Amino acid sequence: MVLAMIIMQVMAGETVFVTGAAGFVGSHTVLELLNSGYKVVAADNLCNAQKSKDGVLPESLVRVQKLTGQTLDFYTVDLQDKQMLIDIFSKYTWYRSCVMCVVQHEIACVIHFAALKAVGESCKIPLAYYRNNLGSSVTLLEVMREFGVRRLVFSSSATVYGSPLYLPLDEDHPVGMSCTNPYGRTKYFIEEILHDVAQSEKGWHIIILRYFNPIGAHPSGQIGEDPQGTPNNLMPYIAQVAVGRRPRLQVFGDQFKTPDGTGVRDYIHIMDLAEGHVAALKYLDSCEGTKPFNLGTGRGYSVLEVIKTFEEATGMPVPYEIVGQRDGDVDSMYANPARAEKLLNWKAKRDLHEMCKSFLSKISRLDTLI
Amino acid sequence: MVLAMIIMQVMAGETVFVTGAAGFVGSHTVLELLNSGYKVVAADNLCNAQKSKDGVLPESLVRVQKLTGQTLDFYTVDLQDKQMLIDIFSKYTWYRSCVMCVVQHEIACVIHFAALKAVGESCKIPLAYYRNNLGSSVTLLEVMREFGVRRLVFSSSATVYGSPLYLPLDEDHPVGMSCTNPYGRTKYFIEEILHDVAQSEKGWHIIILRYFNPIGAHPSGQIGEDPQGTPNNLMPYIAQVAVGRRPRLQVFGDQFKTPDGTGVRDYIHIMDLAEGHVAALKYLDSCEGTKPFNLGTGRGYSVLEVIKTFEEATGMPVPYEIVGQRDGDVDSMYANPARAEKLLNWKAKRDLHEMCKSFLSKISRLDTLI
Repeated sequence: MVLAMIIMQVMAGETVFVTGAAGFVGSHTVLELLNSGYKVVAADNLCNAQKSKDGVLPESLVRVQKLTGQTLDFYTVDLQDKQMLIDIFSKYTWYRSCVMCVVQHEIACVIHFAALKAVGESCKIPLAYYRNNLGSSVTLLEVMREFGVRRLVFSSSATVYGSPLYLPLDEDHPVGMSCTNPYGRTKYFIEEILHDVAQSEKGWHIIILRYFNPIGAHPSGQIGEDPQGTPNNLMPYIAQVAVGRRPRLQVFGDQFKTPDGTGVRDYIHIMDLAEGHVAALKYLDSCEGTKPFNLGTGRGYSVLEVIKTFEEATGMPVPYEIVGQRDGDVDSMYANPARAEKLLNWKAKRDLHEMCKSFLSKISRLDTLI
Repeated sequence: MVLAMIIMQVMAGETVFVTGAAGFVGSHTVLELLNSGYKVVAADNLCNAQKSKDGVLPESLVRVQKLTGQTLDFYTVDLQDKQMLIDIFSKYTWYRSCVMCVVQHEIACVIHFAALKAVGESCKIPLAYYRNNLGSSVTLLEVMREFGVRRLVFSSSATVYGSPLYLPLDEDHPVGMSCTNPYGRTKYFIEEILHDVAQSEKGWHIIILRYFNPIGAHPSGQIGEDPQGTPNNLMPYIAQVAVGRRPRLQVFGDQFKTPDGTGVRDYIHIMDLAEGHVAALKYLDSCEGTKPFNLGTGRGYSVLEVIKTFEEATGMPVPYEIVGQRDGDVDSMYANPARAEKLLNWKAKRDLHEMCKSFLSKISRLDTLI
């Protein structure tokens, strides 16, 4: 019986516990995991997710199931609720009831996305960000330790680099010194906590993924980002202007030290990013302790270049106006993605044109947007 | 009636909520507060404190009451227990039941000492440090906000400076870049959280006190530091050797870049430190947002100088041996205490000789040590 269960496990692929699974990066990664043969146990507190009509899964994951033809297990849980997290891990842990005492965890590893992520909001209610982002990460790590699950992929951000001392940014660039907002600081703090945890005992395999600027959507346009209210990021803002939800785009400053004066960022297609997570999972066992990886294209685009490319890709005009520069915005940020290419065998494949086009496919399904 | 209560309040002095009140710095500060006419509401989870025979107050605070002839209110509470903290704040808040709706908080300000503080232990069980030190601080701040109490003195550490870029260390020296242990990082993280909180809304008055190396004891020898197990700090270690509890002192390295090769630190008498807290309380209203202050003497002593001074002051020999240097130990650390002298009108008055003598008075009461 035990043997049969283990064989089933191997056949079915490793089970990955995914926190924040209903979100933008989470849902695209879950889709990629299911397509790659992994089993997924998904969790989300649904604080930023649209519920589905059936009421069990969030709408994004209902669509992921349809798109992949696979199913997943889902739990509505706040990660700060330690007991509920223990109950979930218990449910997927066999060795406790196993006669032969084979230590076989069905949850083989964790991808931790769950976090509040709005930069502006984090400046207004910092305590909520510290409580939620730090509290949930510490609780998750405690429960992982308790269950002997020490393989983790953590969703970090290029924000931890602060204002670049040099470009392109490699993973050895100092972090934490010039984070300009509480959101970025929670990511930096959690990175530091992870280093300390891995230092405190052997056996941890932790990959830290530092995202540059994820945009775009799954080619189906069924899942993607569509923030309510004023978007924090450029691409959703552009999209809302293109479809007439807002009269024009505000471009924050044209006096940056860049060729056309507008800020330069490294935009990465959400599907490339999702694939980066699967590549990271495959490398986990080779990673002793913690190791950070940039996930970016290595190519920066200015705001005006993005607008132009979007107009070309979609045929939709994007009126804009130049307004004042925002505090803390840096001239240019783009990745040196060499480490990920070398060790994870991963490289961003999709260009800005494709990122814009995938937004178009999403825009054309506005009525079903989540 | 309301007027009478307010008048009573003013006569009795402001009420200070003190967390971690049973500890080394906490108990000496409570003593100083009571002697200065403040009312004290004290809290501690007693995880590192000796209980008294009467079972209500910890032994250190029983002694503080005897030494001052004053009483205080005490609550055994883990600060992460938000509801219990709310209950305590509610008990000391009048305006809720007040007919005239005069907003009068009996808790006027908070001094926040509560934290796990053993450097070595923090490397072994970092998650416990992050959960406890960050969780308790965030919860305390949330409850303070809820009750409109926005005056805080926070117990930080010179550890946040990491390896000094220059000496003496002033408050503008960079922090957080080379903290060598999770304990130090929790202090740095909380400082950052405090900056963000003060930035997020007006009305906060937060003083951050960065202690150098507090040693010594109240002249009575009734309260003081006597760690169980191997002490982390030099002075308790010396004291344990002097009274024969340990055969000899281990001096970690004699190849530092200092006159005699042993590490140089800025030792500050615990009573000076306690007085620094009262000085900080008096300055709180002049401090908009956050402001850090060094509490140190400005004078560094090497390990060998401390040993020699202790032997001279107490007449007790302290045998020692030189052993290997510890990871992360820096050559020299001492404060520039000018800001505290200028703004808080505070200066350390007691010299190393007196710090050692106060230890002697404590040692001579070994049977009653806590």
